[in-house]
Amino acid sequence: MDDLVQALAGIVGQANVASGADAAPWASDWTGQYHGEPLAVARPADRDQVAAILRLAGARGLPVVPVSGNSGLNGGAMGQGAIMLSLDRMRRIREINPRARTAVVEAGVIVAALDAAAETHDLTFPLAFGASGQAMIGGVLSTNAGGANVLRYGNTRDLCLGLEVVLADGRVLDLMQALHKNNSGLDLRDLVIGAEGQLGIVTAAVVKLHPRPSQRVTAMVAMPALDRATDLLNALQDASGNAVVAFEFMPRAFIDGHLALRTDAREPFDAPHPVNLLVELAAARQGNLAEVLEEVLAARLEDGTVSDAVIAASEAQRQEMWSRREAAAEIAFARRPVLDTDIALPRDCVADFLRDVEPLLTAIDPGCQVLSVAHLGDGNIHYTCWPSRDDAALKDALRAEIDRLAVAMNGTFSAEHGVGLSKLGSMSRHKDPVALEVMRAIKDALDPQGILNPGKTIPR
Amino acid sequence: MDDLVQALAGIVGQANVASGADAAPWASDWTGQYHGEPLAVARPADRDQVAAILRLAGARGLPVVPVSGNSGLNGGAMGQGAIMLSLDRMRRIREINPRARTAVVEAGVIVAALDAAAETHDLTFPLAFGASGQAMIGGVLSTNAGGANVLRYGNTRDLCLGLEVVLADGRVLDLMQALHKNNSGLDLRDLVIGAEGQLGIVTAAVVKLHPRPSQRVTAMVAMPALDRATDLLNALQDASGNAVVAFEFMPRAFIDGHLALRTDAREPFDAPHPVNLLVELAAARQGNLAEVLEEVLAARLEDGTVSDAVIAASEAQRQEMWSRREAAAEIAFARRPVLDTDIALPRDCVADFLRDVEPLLTAIDPGCQVLSVAHLGDGNIHYTCWPSRDDAALKDALRAEIDRLAVAMNGTFSAEHGVGLSKLGSMSRHKDPVALEVMRAIKDALDPQGILNPGKTIPR
Repeated sequence: MDDLVQALAGIVGQANVASGADAAPWASDWTGQYHGEPLAVARPADRDQVAAILRLAGARGLPVVPVSGNSGLNGGAMGQGAIMLSLDRMRRIREINPRARTAVVEAGVIVAALDAAAETHDLTFPLAFGASGQAMIGGVLSTNAGGANVLRYGNTRDLCLGLEVVLADGRVLDLMQALHKNNSGLDLRDLVIGAEGQLGIVTAAVVKLHPRPSQRVTAMVAMPALDRATDLLNALQDASGNAVVAFEFMPRAFIDGHLALRTDAREPFDAPHPVNLLVELAAARQGNLAEVLEEVLAARLEDGTVSDAVIAASEAQRQEMWSRREAAAEIAFARRPVLDTDIALPRDCVADFLRDVEPLLTAIDPGCQVLSVAHLGDGNIHYTCWPSRDDAALKDALRAEIDRLAVAMNGTFSAEHGVGLSKLGSMSRHKDPVALEVMRAIKDALDPQGILNPGKTIPR
Repeated sequence: MDDLVQALAGIVGQANVASGADAAPWASDWTGQYHGEPLAVARPADRDQVAAILRLAGARGLPVVPVSGNSGLNGGAMGQGAIMLSLDRMRRIREINPRARTAVVEAGVIVAALDAAAETHDLTFPLAFGASGQAMIGGVLSTNAGGANVLRYGNTRDLCLGLEVVLADGRVLDLMQALHKNNSGLDLRDLVIGAEGQLGIVTAAVVKLHPRPSQRVTAMVAMPALDRATDLLNALQDASGNAVVAFEFMPRAFIDGHLALRTDAREPFDAPHPVNLLVELAAARQGNLAEVLEEVLAARLEDGTVSDAVIAASEAQRQEMWSRREAAAEIAFARRPVLDTDIALPRDCVADFLRDVEPLLTAIDPGCQVLSVAHLGDGNIHYTCWPSRDDAALKDALRAEIDRLAVAMNGTFSAEHGVGLSKLGSMSRHKDPVALEVMRAIKDALDPQGILNPGKTIPR
């Protein structure tokens, strides 16, 4: 393998190749679920170096696993026996065009860094999730990442106008453009977005920026039961002119999990409640959103559909509310063994799902414990199950049951985190078989050697 | 061919096969630009009949051209020597779910009929263009159609959640789902949308519906020059909370063309103006949009950036304003020979493009005449050129020059009408060559016999 390291060093420079013990930072993910020894890690500086690495890999028939922030939860960047291609050096924001509200960015730009750069122009890159300080543009595009603001701004796909992609054989697919209308043949942009590196390596993108909200109001809202939460969301949308940017659900068990995880964590309310919502409204225009929120909540405190509510009075209080919600992945992975899922349902099925799923799981594993947290506005639940023992077959049976119920309620087993390694079984069980055949046909047509992130995303 | 007609009749019934003179309604488009003698026209009743027709075609190696409303402008449904597969009998609206704001529709549902059905639930299917009374869901999905409301609601792709597609070999790709988050492998939905029938036949879809605006205000606005129109749009968006649904530009020549075409046409203003805008604001929420519009216009009448304005005082006046704009295609095709285009530019380049393009064209053909009409909010110009003589090479040279300037200004040669036959040369000249290679690879992988709408969309 010294020969491979030398060949890679010839492309990216000796300082930008790691192998053996030096590759340890790329050998596992932060959840500790996936481990893989890469042959070597190469950190290209630009698109041409990416292309050269792919040509080298192709000539030697070696797999290539792209990695950017390595904050994924599904093993999509697990690099066992592969050349890992880290995009972290390609972190230039090439341009921000405030008038067109667009930015041209390289794949290694950190999501939060792009938002900070947009802020200087009174704009925002509104993708928001716990790992936004680590995740990079290449990764969020490759997984079509979601998060807490999808309700308002859409997934990553909705934030992307143009794309630059290096294909398996090193050819550069240039789809860099900033137009909102461009019907010129097959939509290759949306095909590469969310493809988890199966079709090519995203090296740069043109993304949309949005006006930075000039007002923002954030609250914790307690309810006696989840089934009226959709009505609350609709009332807030109607009263505010669709200014709701986040509508997040945390059951009591989540609050307990947060209190156990963090010594500085505090109760959101004086008393415990079964349903805790984090609600945020934001807008770039006039009108008093705090007043709107207060009015809607006051009416519901009156009629009893809301039990309690706290509106953040400062940015510090707002941050406290968000840090609770964003601790979700840490809470889930603080205990092992753990099974994390990422399902989505029609919004009005969420309460029924949560009611029905737990007894189904305890029927399989009476000792298992469960936790949920949801982007309720999107019907997207991160349902965590801690089985009573570390047994792959048991975990698979639990996941299969969660998936089965979600799909039976017209939902999906995979909402926003991607498939990676963890959901290959779910794909085989529930994805339309013809869709899988078509995916394989496209993959084989564009990567006939199968060197791009093999063994993931598309079950064989 | 009697044998083919009989075989098709065996699938769809004798009454639903046409050939020879009976096939005349499908042998040309309404623009009169494209003529083709189909082998036969088959009108399936359902998905299984579509699949059977494709299997028959595959067995005989015959091309299949799908057609729904046949209102396209680029020859995408030209059926020379092909089995034409007309989806017009598949016109069931299977379901409207007012709570989820979705509809399940078959490919032959007429766009305006879907909107009318949505209206009974106080919802709208907001795709709006001149041919919405003729165009069908299968066609607007296959071309990713745009129109006057894209500014607010997006293209057809943005209005689609789920899709059912029959592939070249008769397999059914079932992507029917109504979720807003569903990352489960390659995005085949967006790949088929806009693919112009190259990858499969769209037979059904789940589409989004939007709240029907409870208020709507429509105006004709005259300006002395186009270069300040973007400022007007931004001011209207800011003052109304992004309630602008249409922002359409018609130069004086367009008004003249309309007056010449229609005996009942009237001048929009007392005096002629170089820049005539059709502006519409709409919202489902409270707030007085008419007041907002009046205030913004009053300030601009004061400072002279707006010359005159008329707000529609009745639905009849609104309809008059829209019927003028929607006469665009008729005005263009009322004279021959004609070259119609469909370019898009960054919004702030539209005035420069219109200033620069005309002398370039008259340098090629001093006798040519030109006309433009634009979805200005999208930077999308339908630029029409009437050359001085009917000469294919001349038309191609004129088109090439229009394309070249648009692309030089970071625009596209194909915004919303699709490629079909008319823009194959533009695709060859301006689309990224690697993108064309990838399109061909995907096409070959999914339709190895090349029987689906051959010779269109993707230049070979």
